[in-house]
Amino acid sequence: MSFSEIKHLASLNAYVPGEQPQESGWIKLNTNENCFPPSPKVSAAIQKALPTLGLYPDPDCQELRSKVASFHKLDKNQVIIGNGSDDLLNLLFRAYTDKNNDAAMLDPSYSHYPVLSEIQGSRIIKIPLTDDLDLDVKTLKNTQANILFLTSPNAPLSFGFSNQKLKEVVENFEGLVVIDEAYADFASENAVGLLQDYNNVFLTRTFSKSYALAGLRVGYGLGSLEVIKVLNKVRDPYNVNKLSQVGAIAALDDLEYYQEIIHKILVTRDQLRDWILDQGWKVHASCTNFLFMEPCDESGKISGDCAKSVFEFLKKHKILVRYFPKHSLTQKGIRVTIGTEQEMDQFKKVIMTWIEKEKLK
Amino acid sequence: MSFSEIKHLASLNAYVPGEQPQESGWIKLNTNENCFPPSPKVSAAIQKALPTLGLYPDPDCQELRSKVASFHKLDKNQVIIGNGSDDLLNLLFRAYTDKNNDAAMLDPSYSHYPVLSEIQGSRIIKIPLTDDLDLDVKTLKNTQANILFLTSPNAPLSFGFSNQKLKEVVENFEGLVVIDEAYADFASENAVGLLQDYNNVFLTRTFSKSYALAGLRVGYGLGSLEVIKVLNKVRDPYNVNKLSQVGAIAALDDLEYYQEIIHKILVTRDQLRDWILDQGWKVHASCTNFLFMEPCDESGKISGDCAKSVFEFLKKHKILVRYFPKHSLTQKGIRVTIGTEQEMDQFKKVIMTWIEKEKLK
Repeated sequence: MSFSEIKHLASLNAYVPGEQPQESGWIKLNTNENCFPPSPKVSAAIQKALPTLGLYPDPDCQELRSKVASFHKLDKNQVIIGNGSDDLLNLLFRAYTDKNNDAAMLDPSYSHYPVLSEIQGSRIIKIPLTDDLDLDVKTLKNTQANILFLTSPNAPLSFGFSNQKLKEVVENFEGLVVIDEAYADFASENAVGLLQDYNNVFLTRTFSKSYALAGLRVGYGLGSLEVIKVLNKVRDPYNVNKLSQVGAIAALDDLEYYQEIIHKILVTRDQLRDWILDQGWKVHASCTNFLFMEPCDESGKISGDCAKSVFEFLKKHKILVRYFPKHSLTQKGIRVTIGTEQEMDQFKKVIMTWIEKEKLK
Repeated sequence: MSFSEIKHLASLNAYVPGEQPQESGWIKLNTNENCFPPSPKVSAAIQKALPTLGLYPDPDCQELRSKVASFHKLDKNQVIIGNGSDDLLNLLFRAYTDKNNDAAMLDPSYSHYPVLSEIQGSRIIKIPLTDDLDLDVKTLKNTQANILFLTSPNAPLSFGFSNQKLKEVVENFEGLVVIDEAYADFASENAVGLLQDYNNVFLTRTFSKSYALAGLRVGYGLGSLEVIKVLNKVRDPYNVNKLSQVGAIAALDDLEYYQEIIHKILVTRDQLRDWILDQGWKVHASCTNFLFMEPCDESGKISGDCAKSVFEFLKKHKILVRYFPKHSLTQKGIRVTIGTEQEMDQFKKVIMTWIEKEKLK
């Protein structure tokens, strides 16, 4: 026998998602799930669909696509549904990158992009932020890539980029601009309006965050008819299962509920941000359901050691947050999902204990 | 702007699945769904999981993999779960084929393979059956391909290949042999035993057919530790949603129920086969939940025209079956899923009407 994986996969390391402990007792502030349950309409719709589980789902997600289209006031054929937005990101890499067509990505942003690029055997060019943490239009203008992946609001840094700046990028970058808007529902503006004027814009959205449906795996993409057509060529015909389709439809039928929980999350987030600032830590302004915060020691010094120490101390107290030590803009901080008020109280309590402990050093 | 899809996708036509009418009133005998509902334990397990939909699923499907492993008496690390077995087939193409590494496939078999190959930009070599409709070991021995896709029991032809023959293929083909066993639960033997002796065997299974869960999108792969490790590199980290995981686990907890419905399907299938033979039509012996039958006209002549006429006549009477006019071994027949007794009675009634109509010609 003489088979082996294709050459460029040999050195690939798979993407490592945030921990998903299967036992209870953890406070999970590490993967930006919604701290509220999904709309009760979701459960009802799923239960109603159970008797038809033996049949294949609609391969074209007609009803869900109509619902998404009318929500965004777009044409149904500008919408594609994915098995999570990860599925759509994967399709974008498959359709628009290869050995001869590079990808570009904002750095830092979603650490899954380089893995998807490596799987496809394409090169990915990392575009740093400017010193004032904005988009570097000049560098992007000179970047030769077929596609650009740009998270706005940014993960893991939590702030968003203005529509004006995004417009400049779209007008200056030569390829397709994918704006990964996983957190857009927590922000005050989003880039949907750009779709009207620019054919080289594609947006990805997810039901995992604002819609509290991470367990269902549903995301969607919005773009020009041409791009959607290309992505449909490489999409698995039955990529979205039946319960995910009906669940997402039901979620979009209860926007009032979601406006309410999003509002609560934003209130809790802003309260936590104030509290963290009171401790002398740095925190970016956030357009998401998480905060990126940089802890300081007793002398007020922010450092990677502090971030690591807080991360581990929280974990010892059964609170999971995310720590990204590999990038200069993230190595001094931790990313903390906004939980319920009770979870935030517990988080603050543990942080207070860490601060007290530091004082004794 | 100057972006475009990568070169080899320009000419690609997406895979077209069997029709999935969303309105009621159709008898669906076209995509080999199970005519019985899934075990009631599946619904119960899904309902129980609904309160945790806000959390990401287990990215490694630990519990489901354990369950599958113990069912097949294998190591848990020999199991990988997919968003339907289509997901796994896609991963196999991604990991083992490219411009320099060809795929091979049995012809006829699953018409999705050539599409997956084209997406990947790899060449696919079609290996015909021998004249007596068996595996052509000699040709396979001389085929230079990194991976071979082989459906057994075969779709759309319904018969299976013996383990002895499969063993010969595995011993003689130089690459990885993927045996697509979507219908294995309807057959009297399967190839799981080969995994013990051969590292170049990989099996795919699905919950869509025997387990009556086509709407859930769950499939699994069984193979050597090395192959599973490679596939995990290219797998989306959260490829299987939470409800699909718990639903599949519950199905495997109710094997008695499934043995019962599979038995019923086989009885109905064999009765229908006898009835079809009585009409003078040809029907292959089946190891699946469908029959491949070749209709004849009043003079006893089997032809593509007859097959087309029956296909269209059934459709006019709201019965969907599958018709594959593009291959010499399939163009004279139709593929008919085994439905409930009532559905089969209606099917026979419409066929009788077609036969009567033919007599009047």
